[in-house]
Amino acid sequence: MLRVCAMREAFHEQLDGIFHDLADICGSVESAVRLATESLLSGDADIAEQVISADVDIDRARERVEDSAFLLLSLQQPVASDLRTVVAALRMVSELERMGDLSVHVAKIARLRVPNLAVPAAVQPIIERMAAVAEDMVCRVSKIITDRNVDDALALVHADEEMDQLRRQSFAELLSTDWSHGVEAAVDVALLGRYYERIADHAVSVANRVVFVVTGENPRSVDG
Amino acid sequence: MLRVCAMREAFHEQLDGIFHDLADICGSVESAVRLATESLLSGDADIAEQVISADVDIDRARERVEDSAFLLLSLQQPVASDLRTVVAALRMVSELERMGDLSVHVAKIARLRVPNLAVPAAVQPIIERMAAVAEDMVCRVSKIITDRNVDDALALVHADEEMDQLRRQSFAELLSTDWSHGVEAAVDVALLGRYYERIADHAVSVANRVVFVVTGENPRSVDG
Repeated sequence: MLRVCAMREAFHEQLDGIFHDLADICGSVESAVRLATESLLSGDADIAEQVISADVDIDRARERVEDSAFLLLSLQQPVASDLRTVVAALRMVSELERMGDLSVHVAKIARLRVPNLAVPAAVQPIIERMAAVAEDMVCRVSKIITDRNVDDALALVHADEEMDQLRRQSFAELLSTDWSHGVEAAVDVALLGRYYERIADHAVSVANRVVFVVTGENPRSVDG
Repeated sequence: MLRVCAMREAFHEQLDGIFHDLADICGSVESAVRLATESLLSGDADIAEQVISADVDIDRARERVEDSAFLLLSLQQPVASDLRTVVAALRMVSELERMGDLSVHVAKIARLRVPNLAVPAAVQPIIERMAAVAEDMVCRVSKIITDRNVDDALALVHADEEMDQLRRQSFAELLSTDWSHGVEAAVDVALLGRYYERIADHAVSVANRVVFVVTGENPRSVDG
């Protein structure tokens, strides 16, 4: 009995370690989103390069979490809620990595247009707001992973609603007869909007997995 | 000993069942991609609706595979390669579901422009080719899941290279000075290109997971 208790304790320590790593990765994603936006709005190629080259660190951190999770599954053979938690962690790390990739896509659009800015001044406020919403959501997800607070996780859906609204607003600007910035800028803004929207979708999805880990129930799915 | 053998046999039968379901879902995704493209190129709103409403079946099939995989993990507690195979199946089903979502996005662009066509005649050949490449890749993935053939899986990367090239070509068209179809069509074509490209990325990723299941080694990662 004592041995079983010690094993369970070791299991939960290792699981906490994995969630700690997930929160760390989420912190790296937050930097990636922030710096990608900075490079986009300033046209600074060095910052864009920094985001692009730092992505490998997120990829490596993902591999480490995957290795730890597999080791945990193999050695401890968890069942029921413990099993679901480890599998949820594996999914969360995939989504966080994907959010890093999407930040790289933003940085690459910034780099492509240097020394110009990809985003015309007229739509900068919308793109800035989308970026701010995305960054805030990623920041909140870090905390949600650490605290496993279900209310905070569920509240993230409202931030995502603002993102959807901003996306619609950006399309209205692009497709209005007043648009005078040409096709290239329109395509850039449409794709940037898509990337920020996907970052937000993944943030909600990661938060939903935390809800699932804590409650055993799945909130609404996100399929942007 | 006999009991262990019987358990392992039951495990492998259930695992085969999961892979059979994955191939079935891949078949549904193939239909979704084909019909979404048909609605796009014909401007047929009914076909677009069909794709959009059929997506719930793919979502439900994903849930069933997830439930089976969790049951298998809980009851049989596989280790080593068996464990990795079940977890790979969980990831594959997420990617297949996502490919269904992306087909829905294509169908929604088609529906939005009815009674017009979203794609101007000048770029129809490129979009048609992208769609054909995506559909062919999804079709091959179905077979790869069934046969678990590593060579076929690795060969899929070449199809993905054609997709990347088509994407660049579509951008060259959009951004050329000859583009006379306006901003809306340009944004539609750019997003459609993105959706087909992502379907192809996911197809490669699913194929890579099959390689991993068979060989225990990860081929190059896809992060489009």
